[in-house]
Amino acid sequence: MKKLYLGIDLGGTEIKLAIVDDAGRIIEEMGIPHNGASIPHIVTAEIIGRARNMRNFDHVVGTGIGVAGDIDQEAGIVRFSPNLGNWKKVPLRTMLKGRLPGKILIDNDANVAAVGAYWLDAKGKARNLICVTLGTGVGGGIICQGKLYRGSTGTAGELGHMSFDHDGPKCNCGSFGCIERYIGAPHLSRFAQGLVEAEGSPVISRLVKNDLSAITPHILARAATLGDPLAKRIWKDAGEKLGVVLASIINFYNPEMIVLAGGVSKAGRLLVAPAARIVHERAFATSAHACKIVVSRFTQKLGVVGAALLAK
Amino acid sequence: MKKLYLGIDLGGTEIKLAIVDDAGRIIEEMGIPHNGASIPHIVTAEIIGRARNMRNFDHVVGTGIGVAGDIDQEAGIVRFSPNLGNWKKVPLRTMLKGRLPGKILIDNDANVAAVGAYWLDAKGKARNLICVTLGTGVGGGIICQGKLYRGSTGTAGELGHMSFDHDGPKCNCGSFGCIERYIGAPHLSRFAQGLVEAEGSPVISRLVKNDLSAITPHILARAATLGDPLAKRIWKDAGEKLGVVLASIINFYNPEMIVLAGGVSKAGRLLVAPAARIVHERAFATSAHACKIVVSRFTQKLGVVGAALLAK
Repeated sequence: MKKLYLGIDLGGTEIKLAIVDDAGRIIEEMGIPHNGASIPHIVTAEIIGRARNMRNFDHVVGTGIGVAGDIDQEAGIVRFSPNLGNWKKVPLRTMLKGRLPGKILIDNDANVAAVGAYWLDAKGKARNLICVTLGTGVGGGIICQGKLYRGSTGTAGELGHMSFDHDGPKCNCGSFGCIERYIGAPHLSRFAQGLVEAEGSPVISRLVKNDLSAITPHILARAATLGDPLAKRIWKDAGEKLGVVLASIINFYNPEMIVLAGGVSKAGRLLVAPAARIVHERAFATSAHACKIVVSRFTQKLGVVGAALLAK
Repeated sequence: MKKLYLGIDLGGTEIKLAIVDDAGRIIEEMGIPHNGASIPHIVTAEIIGRARNMRNFDHVVGTGIGVAGDIDQEAGIVRFSPNLGNWKKVPLRTMLKGRLPGKILIDNDANVAAVGAYWLDAKGKARNLICVTLGTGVGGGIICQGKLYRGSTGTAGELGHMSFDHDGPKCNCGSFGCIERYIGAPHLSRFAQGLVEAEGSPVISRLVKNDLSAITPHILARAATLGDPLAKRIWKDAGEKLGVVLASIINFYNPEMIVLAGGVSKAGRLLVAPAARIVHERAFATSAHACKIVVSRFTQKLGVVGAALLAK
């Protein structure tokens, strides 16, 4: 019998559970609706109950959990999660130990996504890989020689806070001109809103029924696909900015693969094509050619599969 | 008897040889003057002869060589070295094999310096370490979990070509606004020359006997030490620019230690103090606090010791 792993993606609106084999294939999965204001011990009791009822539960040899936020991986504690208001200093590993199978590993969503991208998008083959999570925030995870690299204090991979423009606008993190400040979903949306106000875009205006505050990256991708020149320009600009930072990462880290994941990555080629062009213009040729830049084909699964394979 | 390693630092003006123990202590060392226009097989014959005459040669179990330039580490070939005009596609490992002891490893100067910094400055303890070599070029080497990390094509660590200003002046590498373009020795010198021409500096003018084209980072460090306000300002500016890139590296890689080496690093606190201030202003607090930024106390030895310990 194959060894199986239980993955749990603890999100603010849904908890995903999956039992996964050692190549990252999902054998069995389920979702539980989740209210972000939940109480930790009630949620863990529900997770345990649901997991134990999964058909393949008896073959599970290890459990991994991904949670957005500040996680103490070594102690297995959720220090703080932006999506889960009541989850402060929650000793999640202790609460689950002995009640879910095997070793229990806990990590943040970006690290878990990187493990997922390594197994799903790279099929375990790109030994040095960067996963860039593009959503409200911009984050990342680093695979080094086939293993998750967490850095010295578990805070590696914060590539959303690499500098795009040292003299740029203030970022939430306290620094200035971080790439997240330009291409994080709310910033990208606000930037687009300003441009539409200034220049007009019938397509975007129609898609948001003239409520420009309703512009999202999803709307911008639809507008670009419909041929809207302003939306196309916004994606080109976002891709080029991302490309500058990816070129720095490629010169520094020389990965075999960069996987873009998260909501904003759904723009696909609209974002990747200009980013890749800038990378080839700016990064060392050897390193640029060696690095495939792709959009994850498994964005929705990276968290739960990566969590499961943390335990591998 | 302890295991010993032979290190060779193949520079354009001197070849250093050292026999080193497994903690990086130099047991025996020597230098051979070297003309950069040398013929490879003549130089290798001299190296072999000199090495074999070293007193501890019989205890050497491995040999490492550092060469500036483009090195094929796997094949042991010097593809190209900017300091050694005739060294093109030189199969250095094959030429030395069986004539120098043990496994023979070859790598570029920045990677070798990182290994040296890991053993000498960090005493083998900072498991994730970045060495930044500040000279004519700006380069770097990455230690990951106690081992040299070369990336997917051996080109990792090119941190001199991380972006400082995406819209900045063209760099030799073809990109724009790379940090090397500001703080590489010739750029720093030219920048200083322009400022001295525009604003005047009696101290710097005296040190270069009014030949402003003779300004070097070394002169600028002396002028600053003598209290020259313009020189101090130039170092503050260089340190702050370096700090922006180090903050990006720290957010991405979360190292325990960054070691600055090379000629420009001799400015010491003049450079490190503003860089560290910017890092603490810009990088994530946890990562910034976890990372010591130091000037190597062993700049002249990093190459030869790091080369020796490649073979460890």
